[in-house]
Amino acid sequence: MPFHLSEDSFIALMRRLSRGAGPKPVAGIGDDAAVLQPPRRSHTLVTTDLLTEGVHFLRARTPARLLGRKAMAVNLSDIAAMGGVPLQAVVSVGLPRGTKASFARDLARGLAEQARRHRVAIVGGDTCAAQRLFVNVTLLGAVEPGRAVRRSGARPGDRLYVTGTLGASAAGLTLLRAGRTRVNADAATRHVLRVHLDPTPRVLFGRALGLGGLAMAMIDLSDGLAKDLPRLCEASGTGAVISESALPVDRAALALLGEAEGRLAAIAGGEDYELLFAARSGTEPILAVLAARLRQKVTAIGTLVPRRQGIRLLGRDGGYRPLPGPAFEHFR
Amino acid sequence: MPFHLSEDSFIALMRRLSRGAGPKPVAGIGDDAAVLQPPRRSHTLVTTDLLTEGVHFLRARTPARLLGRKAMAVNLSDIAAMGGVPLQAVVSVGLPRGTKASFARDLARGLAEQARRHRVAIVGGDTCAAQRLFVNVTLLGAVEPGRAVRRSGARPGDRLYVTGTLGASAAGLTLLRAGRTRVNADAATRHVLRVHLDPTPRVLFGRALGLGGLAMAMIDLSDGLAKDLPRLCEASGTGAVISESALPVDRAALALLGEAEGRLAAIAGGEDYELLFAARSGTEPILAVLAARLRQKVTAIGTLVPRRQGIRLLGRDGGYRPLPGPAFEHFR
Repeated sequence: MPFHLSEDSFIALMRRLSRGAGPKPVAGIGDDAAVLQPPRRSHTLVTTDLLTEGVHFLRARTPARLLGRKAMAVNLSDIAAMGGVPLQAVVSVGLPRGTKASFARDLARGLAEQARRHRVAIVGGDTCAAQRLFVNVTLLGAVEPGRAVRRSGARPGDRLYVTGTLGASAAGLTLLRAGRTRVNADAATRHVLRVHLDPTPRVLFGRALGLGGLAMAMIDLSDGLAKDLPRLCEASGTGAVISESALPVDRAALALLGEAEGRLAAIAGGEDYELLFAARSGTEPILAVLAARLRQKVTAIGTLVPRRQGIRLLGRDGGYRPLPGPAFEHFR
Repeated sequence: MPFHLSEDSFIALMRRLSRGAGPKPVAGIGDDAAVLQPPRRSHTLVTTDLLTEGVHFLRARTPARLLGRKAMAVNLSDIAAMGGVPLQAVVSVGLPRGTKASFARDLARGLAEQARRHRVAIVGGDTCAAQRLFVNVTLLGAVEPGRAVRRSGARPGDRLYVTGTLGASAAGLTLLRAGRTRVNADAATRHVLRVHLDPTPRVLFGRALGLGGLAMAMIDLSDGLAKDLPRLCEASGTGAVISESALPVDRAALALLGEAEGRLAAIAGGEDYELLFAARSGTEPILAVLAARLRQKVTAIGTLVPRRQGIRLLGRDGGYRPLPGPAFEHFR
C-alpha cells in the first residue's frame, strides 16, 4: 500500500514512535517551532547531515530501518566528535511518490529508535514528495563552555588515536555494490555490512574525552582517514606521521578484500564513523584506563609533526609515503 | 559553467557571503558541529522547513536568489509566529548535477542576504547532488521562558487578527504557472509575483506581539487561512467566526483574479506568510498603537467561539457558511 503523503503524517508517526525519548521539550512537534529548555551554563552544539538516495545509499539495498538509524547516527557522530551530549533533533524527509507505507514506517522507526538509544528527543520535522529519497537530520547538543573539542587544538608532539577498527564500512560498501546481503552470509560479511549500514556513533567515548579534557583535537571519520586527517592537521596547523603497521585494520575487511585492498580501505575508505583524536604525549595511561572502563578499543596510530613535514605514512618497510588519496567517492 | 560540487564548496560560499551576520558563534562552519552561546535565561526555538523543486517551486520560473531568500524566509516566519528572535541557521542543499555556478552562487547569496537582514548567523550546512533541487533550512531562535506564543493559548471571546493582506501569493502563483514574469509587467502583477517569490516574514511584529504578551495564540499563514485557522482552533480548543467583509483581500489579487477568485485566494490560498493571531478582547487600542508604531497593517477578521460552533464564515449576505477547503495544493 503506498504511503499517503499527507502534510504531517510522517512527522506524526515519528513523533509517536519517539515519544518520551530525550529531554522533554517545553513544546515539541505541533507548533510553528519547538521550544526547548537549554541546559544551564552550557553551549549549544548544532550539526546537520544529509543522506541522499543514489549518492549516500542505494535504496534497493538499504533497509529503511537501518537508513533511519544511520541518518541519525551520522549526526550523533558529529556531536560525539565535539565531546558533546546530543539532545534534540529535527528531521526533514523527501519521499518519492509511491513509497510504501511499510517503508515510511520503518524509516521513521529507525530514526526514532536511534534517537531513543541516545536519549535524543525528536522535536520537529518537515516532509515532502521528492524524486529521490533523502533524509536530513539537524541535531542539537550541549557542551560545557570551553569544553567543545575542536579540530584545531592539537600541536606537534601530540599522539594520534582512533577508536575501533578501520575499513569495515568500505568493505561493506564493496560487497553491497556487488549485490551481497546479510542473508545466509558468513560472519565477516555480516560484520562489514552491519558496520556500513548501521554504524555505531562513539557518543559516550567522545563525551568522556571531552569532559576529561583528554582530546586536544577530534574529528569523526566520515570521509576516511585520508580525507579527515588532513582536515584535523589543517585546522591545528600541523603535519602528521601515521604508522602503517599500527593501523587497526578491520580483520573482516582484510579477510574479504585481501591484504592490500583491506589496508587501503582502512586509510582511504570512509564511513567508519570512528573518532580520530589527538592527545598530549604522556596521557597514554589515562587513555588506556578510560578505554578499558568504557570497553572502547583505542589505538595509537601516529604522531603530529610540524606542518612543513606534511602528512606521511610510515610504511612497514620503514619508508615514508604520502597518504593515498580518498578512494571513497559517493555513488555516481 | 557547471558548478563543481566539491564537498564543501557551496557551504564555504555561503559562509563567505554571510560572514559577520548574526550573533558570532563560538565556532561556526568548519568543525564537526557549530558551537553557540545561547542567550542567558532564554528558551531555544527550533524549526525546519524544506523547499523542493516541483513541489514548492517551479525551478525554471524561480530566480535562484529569490529561492534562497524564500527558503530562509519561511523559517523566519515560523520563529516570528512563536514571538521569538531568530539567531542561527544551518542549511542543507541538494543540487542537481550540471547546476550552473551562477545558479549556486545566487542561491547562496539569497540565503545569506535574507539571513543577514534578520541578523541570523549561518553556522553550518551540508550539500550533495540530487535529482531535483531542494533547500532545507533549520533555524534556531530564542524566546524568554514562558513568552513563546503557542497555537494553544486562545479562548472563546478572543479577537482574531491578521497582518498584511491575503491572497497575493496565490495570485502570484497563478500568474507564474501561466508563464508570467515581472519583466514588463504592470504594478499589480509585479506585486503578486514578488509576494509569492519573495515573501516578507513578519519577524519584528511577531516579536513585539510576543514580548508584549498581546498574542494569546499565533500561527503563520503558510498553508492559508482555511488550513491554518483550524490548526489554531484545534490547538486552543475553540471554534471561530470569520467575517468575509473584514478580510484584507489583496487589491492586486482582486484586480488580477477577479472578485470571486480573489476572495477565494485570500481564504484558501497559501504562502502569504502573514501572521494570524488571537488577542484578548479589550486590547484593540494597544494593538492599534503597536501596529502604527511598527507600520504593520493589522486587521481584525473575526472572533473565537466555543468549539462546538465550529469554524464558519460570516458572508457579506449575513449568512454563515463553512470555510472553503484549501485550494492551495503543492505543484503536482
